[in-house]
Amino acid sequence: MADLYLLGLDFGTESARGVRINAATGAQEASHTHAYRHGVMTSALPDGTPLPPAYALQNATDYLEAAEAILATIGRDHAIAGIGIGFTASTPLPARADGTALSVLHPSEPHAYVKLWKHAAAQPYADLFNERGGAYLENFGGRLSGEWLLAKAAQIEAEAPAIWQQADRFIEAGDWLVWQLTGLEARSLDFAAYKAQFSAAGGYPSNVVAGLADRLSPPLPVGTPAGLLTPEWQQRTGIRGDAVVAVAVIDSHVVLPAVGGTVAGTLVSALGTSAAYLLLGDRARALPAGIEGVADGAALPDLCCYEAGQAGFGDTLGWFVKTFPRGADTAESFRIYDESAAGLAPGESRLVALDWWSGNRVPFADSSLSGLLVGLNLSTSAAQIYRALLEALCYGARSIFDHLAAGGLPIERVIMTSGLSRRNPLLLQIMADVLDREIEIPDIANPTAVGAAIHGAVAAGVVSSFTEGAARFGASRFDRYRPDPEHAALYAVLYDQYRQLAADDQIRRSMRALGQAGGIPDGSPGTPRYPSQGPDGAAAPTGSQPEAGPSRARA
Amino acid sequence: MADLYLLGLDFGTESARGVRINAATGAQEASHTHAYRHGVMTSALPDGTPLPPAYALQNATDYLEAAEAILATIGRDHAIAGIGIGFTASTPLPARADGTALSVLHPSEPHAYVKLWKHAAAQPYADLFNERGGAYLENFGGRLSGEWLLAKAAQIEAEAPAIWQQADRFIEAGDWLVWQLTGLEARSLDFAAYKAQFSAAGGYPSNVVAGLADRLSPPLPVGTPAGLLTPEWQQRTGIRGDAVVAVAVIDSHVVLPAVGGTVAGTLVSALGTSAAYLLLGDRARALPAGIEGVADGAALPDLCCYEAGQAGFGDTLGWFVKTFPRGADTAESFRIYDESAAGLAPGESRLVALDWWSGNRVPFADSSLSGLLVGLNLSTSAAQIYRALLEALCYGARSIFDHLAAGGLPIERVIMTSGLSRRNPLLLQIMADVLDREIEIPDIANPTAVGAAIHGAVAAGVVSSFTEGAARFGASRFDRYRPDPEHAALYAVLYDQYRQLAADDQIRRSMRALGQAGGIPDGSPGTPRYPSQGPDGAAAPTGSQPEAGPSRARA
Repeated sequence: MADLYLLGLDFGTESARGVRINAATGAQEASHTHAYRHGVMTSALPDGTPLPPAYALQNATDYLEAAEAILATIGRDHAIAGIGIGFTASTPLPARADGTALSVLHPSEPHAYVKLWKHAAAQPYADLFNERGGAYLENFGGRLSGEWLLAKAAQIEAEAPAIWQQADRFIEAGDWLVWQLTGLEARSLDFAAYKAQFSAAGGYPSNVVAGLADRLSPPLPVGTPAGLLTPEWQQRTGIRGDAVVAVAVIDSHVVLPAVGGTVAGTLVSALGTSAAYLLLGDRARALPAGIEGVADGAALPDLCCYEAGQAGFGDTLGWFVKTFPRGADTAESFRIYDESAAGLAPGESRLVALDWWSGNRVPFADSSLSGLLVGLNLSTSAAQIYRALLEALCYGARSIFDHLAAGGLPIERVIMTSGLSRRNPLLLQIMADVLDREIEIPDIANPTAVGAAIHGAVAAGVVSSFTEGAARFGASRFDRYRPDPEHAALYAVLYDQYRQLAADDQIRRSMRALGQAGGIPDGSPGTPRYPSQGPDGAAAPTGSQPEAGPSRARA
Repeated sequence: MADLYLLGLDFGTESARGVRINAATGAQEASHTHAYRHGVMTSALPDGTPLPPAYALQNATDYLEAAEAILATIGRDHAIAGIGIGFTASTPLPARADGTALSVLHPSEPHAYVKLWKHAAAQPYADLFNERGGAYLENFGGRLSGEWLLAKAAQIEAEAPAIWQQADRFIEAGDWLVWQLTGLEARSLDFAAYKAQFSAAGGYPSNVVAGLADRLSPPLPVGTPAGLLTPEWQQRTGIRGDAVVAVAVIDSHVVLPAVGGTVAGTLVSALGTSAAYLLLGDRARALPAGIEGVADGAALPDLCCYEAGQAGFGDTLGWFVKTFPRGADTAESFRIYDESAAGLAPGESRLVALDWWSGNRVPFADSSLSGLLVGLNLSTSAAQIYRALLEALCYGARSIFDHLAAGGLPIERVIMTSGLSRRNPLLLQIMADVLDREIEIPDIANPTAVGAAIHGAVAAGVVSSFTEGAARFGASRFDRYRPDPEHAALYAVLYDQYRQLAADDQIRRSMRALGQAGGIPDGSPGTPRYPSQGPDGAAAPTGSQPEAGPSRARA
């Protein structure tokens, strides 16, 4: 019998990547990356139509092109048992009942395109919903993000009613791609629960966006087969066999089984431009104060998954080395700063920073907060400030751990993943010291795509569970960073200062005041063009100033 | 009749400078600078004897060498009517009854040398006296500085009793130089009042340092003739005529009549490495909260002079451009940063800094405080941070103005002097905008030495008053910076944030905690080797941790 294979696809912000795994050996045998033809559209549509500020759109046909290129490159002439897909979210598009993306029919209409997760122009709608409140926000700390599906639906409904009228479906791009590959609309509970506030008890929130309920459909658990790859796609890609396509998964979640995240008590963190923290629990509890969201059985079956994050992480370090370059390029500057910072002792700088360069998510959920540095004196060096930033990012992580612990959630194992965690051992050692915990770094290539392949394996019945899939196809080797007890004690003292400064009301008042001060327009959007009646019939305040609005005005 | 001349001498930290003024025309005709042979001795004596940390000594014979070189260069063959001397303070030395500096007799004994104003190793004695308190500190906010004469005397008395034993006199170097030039010990009320806490009512504080009272002598008002230049000095320098030498003056005070500071309600500021603010008043009032000191008739007759300052000023800007250089050298970096910062609008950076890189003097008198930056985000530029520092220095100045005003002291005219005020028009415009006041910059070369010459003119009777001296020999032209009303309104908002952050207890607690944190020894000196009995017989706390001690331990 010929070997069987699994394909995992990871649809990111700029490109998609796929891997092929030998289902018998577990070996990763091929991978391929394909950049989206139109990338992220922030200033104009493909036909030149200009876009308002804060827009970030994508072209759905780019996904099909990428999928075909990848599947053909790594799948041709191979017998594929299962295909899994991870996708950015919330990245929804309006479509016809037959799956046609509305952008194909209305190529000059911005609202017909995919709204990428970081499309920020829907934030005022989220602000409005947050002011109104509602039971559907219970698992999300009472706050809807402008990046989520409801806000994006609201923006189309309000600003492009004709498009909304023609949109039989409003669907996450990951689900839409599965639909294209299988011919079947099979939505993912993962997208639905985390990005559209679907719950088993309450379904989708009703009466928040007019007509939205008709445009959604009931979701299926992750690991469920959505359908088989259609003959047309088999022909296009040269894939052989009955390839089962799994329902799609949020990219940040799909990685879990590839890096050891399949058991309650495991926390998986992705340290990138920003930092995400996923804590698996075995039963749903009340959302701890400051934690961003939780859903039950959505990221992985039978587990609930708590989400928290730092709005800025690697970008803050990048800001520093680009603002105060030391080398010929950013990479060299990083190397020089990392080297100098590694030569410093914990606390030697006598600096503490608040890591809020991009605002704060936990516990304040306030994008108007900003970075702070304290302890500067005439002998403070650039490397000391850089190290203080490394330390502050770890204090921010510690603060999230503390909020999870305060909510009664046990953390038994800490796994950190993504490029930064492999590139910067100094950061990881400081992280272990500040958290006073062992940190494990999975030694695995393309973990997100591998996680997607494991979803494909579960859906295809190649493995009987995610645990088995993780054991057979996920990371088997972990690098470990262990806390130095002396450093941990020093950092406990410094973290206490971080904690006290973070809790200081005056500092946050000043940050917000500064955000609104100054001689240049701050571009806060005005009241969104949206019905001022909430679902409960209460009038929304007019002329309200959204606290965490996008930084530029909508046109 | 031959022209008559005045000489003004300005004895600074690294060198002395002299000017010759034509008493008839007021023209500055010559100047000369002479660097001290041994400069500031911080690591070793001239014979190689190593010095403990935090020491800053000078060699008294260097002053004689500089005086001779300057007087001969600018005075030879001229008929000199009066000589005035400005000198750093408190810069005292132990001497024999005949004026011999003890360092001549004990060249290997550190405590036999001049203790320069910035000698920091006497701070623990000041801390001890401050804990004990006393009426003699009333005009100084209850706090003696470690830079002042009493602390330096205490250090010798405690640490080098044999030297103290042989010291018939303990005398400011300015007074000592006058003694050398005239053969007469004529102490200055200016030094005595500000640096040795002498008051007309109470004399020198008694029982603070054992035996100190015997080593001081009653002071004379400034503008008083101390005596005539001795024939020996006339011969050495070629000076002709009966040159009257005035009693010496603190260098920061001697400048007053040269820059328009002779009337109550005038505030004269020297913006240098640190910033000094002198406010003239016509009658003594209770010292306003946070202001550092006041004496009546000491800096100028019939006026009281309030002193306040910022511990760091130009040094903070220097720190930034050296830590984050932009150009080939510091000067070019300054030019580049100033140019970029000038292109920014007030508040555009959305940053506020607390200007405490060197600690804070007003109102906290706490050298353990440190710098703070708030409002940082991913689009913050280096030039924005530089401008935020410029603005913060001006907010610090505004805070001093506010404390003076809160004490009921009218400020009618603001004069700013020193190099920084002439070199940096951007800083001065921001200062005018932040203070919302017109600022005058005197157009005069060598103002400190000219001020000294005016003291010589008063002592010699060439003029009948400092007001007349100022009019004839001081600055006659002033550049003016006027506030832009729009900018002033913006800065009022930002200054309000500065004020609130400065008043925030948590921030200052964290700064102090950080100063003591970390893995490296912070070098706080232990309890000084000094009798633990205060003048009131109370035992001083043992093992106390001075809050504002020197940053390195004494050996």
